[in-house]
Formats: sequence, C-alpha cells, structure tokens
Amino acid sequence: MTIDEIKRKLESVLSPKRFEHSLGVMDTAINLAEKYGGNVEKAALAGILHDCAREIKGQAVFELCKKYHINVDYITLAQPELLHGPVGAVIAAEEYGIEDEDVLKAIECHTTGRENMTLLDKIIFIADYIEPGRKFPGVEEVRELAYRDLNRSILLSLDNTIRYVMNKGAFIHPDTILARNFIIKESRS
Amino acid sequence: MTIDEIKRKLESVLSPKRFEHSLGVMDTAINLAEKYGGNVEKAALAGILHDCAREIKGQAVFELCKKYHINVDYITLAQPELLHGPVGAVIAAEEYGIEDEDVLKAIECHTTGRENMTLLDKIIFIADYIEPGRKFPGVEEVRELAYRDLNRSILLSLDNTIRYVMNKGAFIHPDTILARNFIIKESRS
Repeated sequence: MTIDEIKRKLESVLSPKRFEHSLGVMDTAINLAEKYGGNVEKAALAGILHDCAREIKGQAVFELCKKYHINVDYITLAQPELLHGPVGAVIAAEEYGIEDEDVLKAIECHTTGRENMTLLDKIIFIADYIEPGRKFPGVEEVRELAYRDLNRSILLSLDNTIRYVMNKGAFIHPDTILARNFIIKESRS
Repeated sequence: MTIDEIKRKLESVLSPKRFEHSLGVMDTAINLAEKYGGNVEKAALAGILHDCAREIKGQAVFELCKKYHINVDYITLAQPELLHGPVGAVIAAEEYGIEDEDVLKAIECHTTGRENMTLLDKIIFIADYIEPGRKFPGVEEVRELAYRDLNRSILLSLDNTIRYVMNKGAFIHPDTILARNFIIKESRS
C-alpha cells in the first residue's frame, strides 16, 4: 500500500480525532527523523500507523491476542489499552502490508517503551507524546526538549507517565522501567 | 548462634548508628509479626540481621558477589548499595549460621522488594522503612498505616521510593516495580 492508501484506509476505521492525532504523530516523526538523521520513510509509516489498533475494544482485543500469540499478562488484562501496540504491529503487517521489522517494532513498543529502543522506536514514542494535538500539563517542556535532546525528552516523558500511573494506583508496566533505565544508561555512556 | 550472640557480633561490625537501626527494625518487625500473625522469631532474626552486609563497601562487595554467584547487573554496578540485601543473605547464612530460607529471603529482598513477597518479606521491608530511628518526610504516614493496612503502607513506601529515585535521575530496580504491581494485584483480589 502507498502511504495515501494507508491514510484512506485509516481514515475509514479511526475516529476523526484519532486520525488527526495519527497525522500529527506522522508529521512530528518525520521532523524528528530529519533532525536526528533517522529514516524518514519508516518514521512516516510507523507514525501514521502507530494507533491502527487503538479503537479495537473489549473482547476483540483478546481474541486478536489469542489468534496472533500475543502474551496477555495480569497487567494487560487489567489495562487492555496497553495491547494496542502489539496488536497494532500485527494489524499493520496483516492489513496494511507492512513488512519492515523496524516499523513494526516501533509500533509494537510505542506505548510502554522497551529496553534497547532504536532511534525509530524513540522517535515514534516521543512523537506520540508531543504531536501538536497533545495538550496536557508538562507537554510543552517535553516538546521543546525533543528537538534539543531526544533522550532527555524521553526520560522526562517516562517520568511524567510513571508519576501519572502511580497517582492512579495503577500497575506500572515493567517495559516502561526498562526503557527508562536504558535511556539513563545510554545517556551516561 | 543465639539472638544475643548475633547482637554481640553485629555490634562489633556495624557502626553504632547502624546497630541502633538494626535493633529498631528488629523491634518493629516483632511488633508487626504479632499484629499480623507472622512468625515472631523469624521476624526478629531477619530484622536484626537485615543490614549485616550494609557496611561492606567498594571492591569487597563485588568480590563477595563473585564468590557467592550473586548476579551484578548494570543497575547494581552503578548502585552497589543495592547489593547489601543479597550479600547480607549470604553473610547471614555463612557467618551467623542462619539456615531458615524464609529469613534469608527476607534479608535478600529487603531493599528492592520483589514479586510474590511473603508476610515476612513485607514485615522486614516496611520495618526497615518505619523503625523509630527513621525521620524523613512522609515516614509518619507510612508508620501509622503499617499497623492498619500492611499492603497500603508498602505501596505508599514504594511510591515514595520510586519518586525519590526518579527525582535523582537514578535507575529504578525492576524488582521494585514487580513488588509494587504484586501488592496492587494482591490488594485487588
């Protein structure tokens, strides 16, 4: 599929708001890839498609996980919205014809983060956080930082997210901690 | 060794302040074991001995880890003070003759916490946080809570610790997150 075909299909399955968000993440990811010497085409594909499974709800999510052997643990059982990354990677491959493993991996980990994030993973992760449609306390600082120091912006966004999740009394996904530790380790070396 | 012999030996290897802290943890652990129907003798032993390796510093810690096959990863390499739990469990066995696996496990995980904490693990973990010598912002709330709702007090202490570590920009130990998730899971069930 061309990127225009992908956009048309996405527009037909996502709410207008989510489609706008996806366009914002794509544009932001392209900007960041240009800034940091990443692959612009992969950034665009992962950016536009990152939420392709975000509006699959309820039992359908668990059925897709079963079908595609995606692990559901006590955390994702309690917070199934965390599954839209892994499920999105499968949908991107199956329904949008994406074969590039880098793109699929970036979609897979865009919500929780993970250890050993690639430049593309980082770009999609932070683009999702700072795209122009995002408006919440603290976003401006992360947005500004993303164009100066990618790792520091990710660390700040992870810390914000961990605080938010703690304040809700919800589970913290271990991958988010591994992502945070990895970014600190990388920044120190 | 009797508990009096353990105390005498500990007094000779720990600073007066650390020895006082150890007595405080022992007394608090005994109180909590009585309150929650735990094994008082095990609580006393794990309480008095939990920091038996806390003053082994520098290269000696890593040599003990090598000798006793204790895993050192990038987190404990950067924050070797986290090793005094696992090293302490070995010292408690080798030098203080402790054979009880429950006691050794509670010493091992008293700093980071872990998944599937036993009642004894929880008692030592929180006794270390709230013993009467501890004076830091927030300790009173946790101390009061520990005698009303053990899990809630541990969750609060973990959240405080995670915030403290984040504010320092330091690594968060994954076991601390697993401990926190486990406590939430247990409290919900």
